[in-house]
Amino acid sequence: MSDNFLRNTWYVFAWSDEIDGKPVGRKIIGDHIVCFRGRDGLVALADSCPHRFVPLSLGSVNDGLLECAYHGLRFGAEGRCVFNPLGDPPDRAVVKTYPVVERNGVIWVWTGDPALADPDSIADFSFLTAPGRATVTGYAHVSADYQLAIDNLSDLTHIQFIHRDFQASEAYPRLEHKTWQDGDDVYRSLTFPNGRPAAFLQGFLSPDHLIDFTVETRWTLPSNVKLTATVTEPGAPEQYLIGNDSAHLVTPEDDGSCHYFYAHSRDYGVGDPVADEKVREWQRIGFGEQDKPVLEAQQRRLGHRDIMQLRPVILPTDVGGVRARRILAQRIAHERRGEPAPQAMED
Amino acid sequence: MSDNFLRNTWYVFAWSDEIDGKPVGRKIIGDHIVCFRGRDGLVALADSCPHRFVPLSLGSVNDGLLECAYHGLRFGAEGRCVFNPLGDPPDRAVVKTYPVVERNGVIWVWTGDPALADPDSIADFSFLTAPGRATVTGYAHVSADYQLAIDNLSDLTHIQFIHRDFQASEAYPRLEHKTWQDGDDVYRSLTFPNGRPAAFLQGFLSPDHLIDFTVETRWTLPSNVKLTATVTEPGAPEQYLIGNDSAHLVTPEDDGSCHYFYAHSRDYGVGDPVADEKVREWQRIGFGEQDKPVLEAQQRRLGHRDIMQLRPVILPTDVGGVRARRILAQRIAHERRGEPAPQAMED
Amino acid sequence: MSDNFLRNTWYVFAWSDEIDGKPVGRKIIGDHIVCFRGRDGLVALADSCPHRFVPLSLGSVNDGLLECAYHGLRFGAEGRCVFNPLGDPPDRAVVKTYPVVERNGVIWVWTGDPALADPDSIADFSFLTAPGRATVTGYAHVSADYQLAIDNLSDLTHIQFIHRDFQASEAYPRLEHKTWQDGDDVYRSLTFPNGRPAAFLQGFLSPDHLIDFTVETRWTLPSNVKLTATVTEPGAPEQYLIGNDSAHLVTPEDDGSCHYFYAHSRDYGVGDPVADEKVREWQRIGFGEQDKPVLEAQQRRLGHRDIMQLRPVILPTDVGGVRARRILAQRIAHERRGEPAPQAMED
Repeated sequence: MSDNFLRNTWYVFAWSDEIDGKPVGRKIIGDHIVCFRGRDGLVALADSCPHRFVPLSLGSVNDGLLECAYHGLRFGAEGRCVFNPLGDPPDRAVVKTYPVVERNGVIWVWTGDPALADPDSIADFSFLTAPGRATVTGYAHVSADYQLAIDNLSDLTHIQFIHRDFQASEAYPRLEHKTWQDGDDVYRSLTFPNGRPAAFLQGFLSPDHLIDFTVETRWTLPSNVKLTATVTEPGAPEQYLIGNDSAHLVTPEDDGSCHYFYAHSRDYGVGDPVADEKVREWQRIGFGEQDKPVLEAQQRRLGHRDIMQLRPVILPTDVGGVRARRILAQRIAHERRGEPAPQAMED
Repeated sequence: MSDNFLRNTWYVFAWSDEIDGKPVGRKIIGDHIVCFRGRDGLVALADSCPHRFVPLSLGSVNDGLLECAYHGLRFGAEGRCVFNPLGDPPDRAVVKTYPVVERNGVIWVWTGDPALADPDSIADFSFLTAPGRATVTGYAHVSADYQLAIDNLSDLTHIQFIHRDFQASEAYPRLEHKTWQDGDDVYRSLTFPNGRPAAFLQGFLSPDHLIDFTVETRWTLPSNVKLTATVTEPGAPEQYLIGNDSAHLVTPEDDGSCHYFYAHSRDYGVGDPVADEKVREWQRIGFGEQDKPVLEAQQRRLGHRDIMQLRPVILPTDVGGVRARRILAQRIAHERRGEPAPQAMED
Repeated sequence: MSDNFLRNTWYVFAWSDEIDGKPVGRKIIGDHIVCFRGRDGLVALADSCPHRFVPLSLGSVNDGLLECAYHGLRFGAEGRCVFNPLGDPPDRAVVKTYPVVERNGVIWVWTGDPALADPDSIADFSFLTAPGRATVTGYAHVSADYQLAIDNLSDLTHIQFIHRDFQASEAYPRLEHKTWQDGDDVYRSLTFPNGRPAAFLQGFLSPDHLIDFTVETRWTLPSNVKLTATVTEPGAPEQYLIGNDSAHLVTPEDDGSCHYFYAHSRDYGVGDPVADEKVREWQRIGFGEQDKPVLEAQQRRLGHRDIMQLRPVILPTDVGGVRARRILAQRIAHERRGEPAPQAMED
């Protein structure tokens, strides 16, 4: 088992709308898991039939049960085979179950001790289904360690370079940034003061309209980021113009790869399919063609080494990512030693 | 050398019509072998030139000899270089030869001690070239251990699920099955009693015609299955309607992958190219899109582990596959200890 | 570090025209290196930003410096970060530099101790930019050890077989060949006497014109070959008809793969785009479809083993390749022991 992952935590498994009539299989923190909607609602099981070890996710939902594609054994919410088409279900035909919760369009799976699974510990992403907003979701598989994706999100100064065509701001040299902590949540805020709107805002604001542009990130355990982008009148944070909340939900697949679920929820252009398409295009390019290749190239350079082994140069802008890594590392170390989760670290 | 393969046995190397004017290279049980038709007939050699180790299968048949693609050395039936375009053939330029037999459209290669190679020990597949029948052959490379393919063929209850669209029968819940042994050959029979024809039979029988459908498999060492499908009047096995013999010849490529040669030989629609095409389509879908992905997914779950290490749930329908695995394991163990092949195991 | 490579030597990194406004990254002898043209001319650096280890070759040249794609740090000729868009350049942000030389359209990088880098030790390929000639360059990535490519070039008897369609000669059975040495340079010459022109010459000579065709190769450390092809009147080497010099510059990428830079420079059809296209087509087929697949198949047969471990049959025509391997092996052994490069080996 890899030392790289927290187990007693909730990971994002899928967007709600990814799972309809068919089972969906995904590997998270090295475990193959299948999720389906059956007669007992949403169920998450080990994705391997105990008979011949074929992935159950190749099967289908039949009579509200998950039917194996190979010989038709059917499994229910408790992970037990409850139907064998040619006889009694074998006693030993039982697979592991995982606690699963659906909330605000997100399906979360708990990978650790089921007795500790508390849905109240899931971070708040209720903006995803808040009324009066338009939300566009997406997914990218990234062949890079999840902590590299978190580093990326914890230091948004990269948007000036990686996402130059959409997001570069003439105010960059005057950038103000700060980092703070609330319990185990790490916050960072970047303000690009008194500049013209970046390209991605120019459909919604006049190119000559000088603005303050602020992006605030909230990292929560294990590896999820809420990002709030706000446009205000220069020097007047109370004079709100438009805004955009986004979710960046990163789930380790295994060592060296992760699932990246993203969503952008805006309060402008609501109900406008052209604006939706613009967001979708931006997601496709921004994550698929810009972040993903950089993260994957970074991973190829690192190989099997942890980035810290290579003694990276640390910049002042790395402070948020460093804190998130430290909190996560301490939690993992506690878990390995079998100790209860510590109180939130002091700032 | 892998412990997973019997060496003193005949393996299917190719269909006869795969080898015409050009040499064909294939890896079987980890050995690279090239087969060609030359001045001494069919020849099988180690597929590696002793000069620069380029595969001889990249070369060509020239003057009835196998000519290396790189520098033109030519090799004959004894594996000896008998022609060097720029001088005498070097004494040391000799490659290993393999006993090879062509029978009923199948090319068999013996991978063990040549002194023990007895063509009479090749199982009977003479139906493949029997008169008055129409036979369609094909090939699939499968990235799964050959024993997983044998398990698949030894328990045909899977056809109701994997091949549902072609072969699912309403009589499945009433399925009768039995297993028996004759020497080292393992037989299994499944009867779907008194049901309407499955989809793949509906071009040849009226959809309302109630039938008994029986499939009998004969597994022979090392890993080849003859399958006889018979349609009879319900309750009257002597009232034969139509039938279909098929060969499922599985040759290990190496650990975790195999060659799957299949052929269907029928006594209906003989000479009808539309019926041929229907079989070919069924083979392409049935093996290529249905069995192969399931076997490969199974292999990915197993990784480098043998399936028995994972303590699979065993169903009554697995008895044929379990016997075949046991017979094969005993033969391999005998061979590893240098003992002669045992008498056929008792039933 | 692999024992397979000489480090104190110049390797070809690129053709000059491959590097214009954008940086180019390539791995040579296992080192990731980036080359760009900046305010200080041509620069070669370790291709990894010391901040987050993203390849610098993903970045761009900005203000004559190499800018990292991720956070905009910029690096100059000394490998030092000289610009940080959000503050002072960090002291520790320095990457390794490599001596780099551009000569006759070729960019050479020195991978060893910079103090020993002497551009005068670069072998002469000045024909590449000599006036009155037409030169066509190209590149192929080959998944085979660089020494297999050198073996290929050191024994051109293979052209009769691998390049049969272009280069086979009816004079092959009368081939004369010799090998000699000048210092550490290994020369070989092959003459196809008194034959009709091979196919690739038939656009330039009458098919009935009997000729002597001579190819001479000069191998120089570490792995570069100059090949001179000359067509003369039969038995009259002084009666020169046409000729062709080519460069075959092989750079190890890592164990088991190499970069193959090739160029053909001719004194006929100069200024004729049809003749250029013919050369380009020949390069594409000759290297891409003929040499490359053979070398890669050879490498797959060898796996991680050195060819010498397998005790290959040695032919008289292998003498040039054997000498080149021996000289290279001795140089590498000297370097590993920390001794100065030896005097050129005696013939």
